Amino acid sequence: MIETGTEPESRAERKLRTRRAILDATLELCSDSSLNALSLRQVAKQVGIVPTAFYRHFDSIESLGLALVEESFDSLRDLFRDVRRNARADEDIVDGSIDALVDHVHRRRDHFGFIARERVAGPRSVRGAIHREIELCERELATDLALMTGTDAWTGKDLHVLSALFVSVLVSTAEQILSTTRVEQEEQIIATVRTQLRMLLIGVYQWRSER
Amino acid sequence: MIETGTEPESRAERKLRTRRAILDATLELCSDSSLNALSLRQVAKQVGIVPTAFYRHFDSIESLGLALVEESFDSLRDLFRDVRRNARADEDIVDGSIDALVDHVHRRRDHFGFIARERVAGPRSVRGAIHREIELCERELATDLALMTGTDAWTGKDLHVLSALFVSVLVSTAEQILSTTRVEQEEQIIATVRTQLRMLLIGVYQWRSER
Repeated sequence: MIETGTEPESRAERKLRTRRAILDATLELCSDSSLNALSLRQVAKQVGIVPTAFYRHFDSIESLGLALVEESFDSLRDLFRDVRRNARADEDIVDGSIDALVDHVHRRRDHFGFIARERVAGPRSVRGAIHREIELCERELATDLALMTGTDAWTGKDLHVLSALFVSVLVSTAEQILSTTRVEQEEQIIATVRTQLRMLLIGVYQWRSER
Repeated sequence: MIETGTEPESRAERKLRTRRAILDATLELCSDSSLNALSLRQVAKQVGIVPTAFYRHFDSIESLGLALVEESFDSLRDLFRDVRRNARADEDIVDGSIDALVDHVHRRRDHFGFIARERVAGPRSVRGAIHREIELCERELATDLALMTGTDAWTGKDLHVLSALFVSVLVSTAEQILSTTRVEQEEQIIATVRTQLRMLLIGVYQWRSER
């Protein structure tokens, strides 16, 4: 146990600290696989607690996973807020979004990796929670895209379709950045997505919703 | 053991049949998780062989995974060939691609699911193999996109960027189709990707490569 201050640690503080240690250990343990491959016993061992102590914090690996989804989407929401802020500035929405994406992925590689993996390979309830969170991001982004030049006459439906496409490209780019540690390769990924978003924007400016 | 005919089964035939049983058992066992969560013992038990018999067919779970990547990409290549055939027909590239995608995902749900999961959550070597196969698909698609109306003056680089975007959208759509079993939801996914590809194509027709 590491002492964090000179004051003796309260029971509540200690509980919070153990909870944090469980979350961090889980992010680390499943960084190369999935929650499905993880046992409660492994997590307890990594944290240095007895398996039964785990239950003081979480009911199951699944509910631990749901807590990590919530925490990871706090990171993702930060990203989307920055992207949306740049979307509102309009002019350099492409460069602005990509810069925000790269910056956030670098800062919270663990969270982004967790979402990328559990989204397709996690327990069913965790996949469902991620799906709902991504939909929420799409809906929020659609609201902001409505304020962008060129989408004035778009239907709400088309705005959501565009927003979902935008989110798909961001998710795919984040996954590619996560899969490399080489700078030249990352630069290539970024150059590609920059051109992709520019191609896409040209379509947006020409698009007319059917009513 | 099930007898497949009246002729006694040869040693080679039996070996092939067990290999097939191992591949099928693995697709089934990791259908809700990832190869990383799978032990050789589990596979052997499911097939009904002793663990040591596994090694007559594969060196490890990882090399079994690589065999499944190869097999799954045979399915994916069929899809991409159909998509590219439709791309060449040009006129209904959007509807044609989506029809091909939905049809193939329905037919080989196991292969598409395997690729979707192992792409992000599988062992490193398996992730690498999938990555290379997807790049190959992108390169082949780029060659065909070059023949499409509107891309005559495009650089090879831009063609590859467009091809990668196209593949991203198809991958993301396949993942969404895999995540639902409800018909109305699938119809919604299809309607969304149809509009997305149309938006994208409008951009393509307007795009001029910088030289």
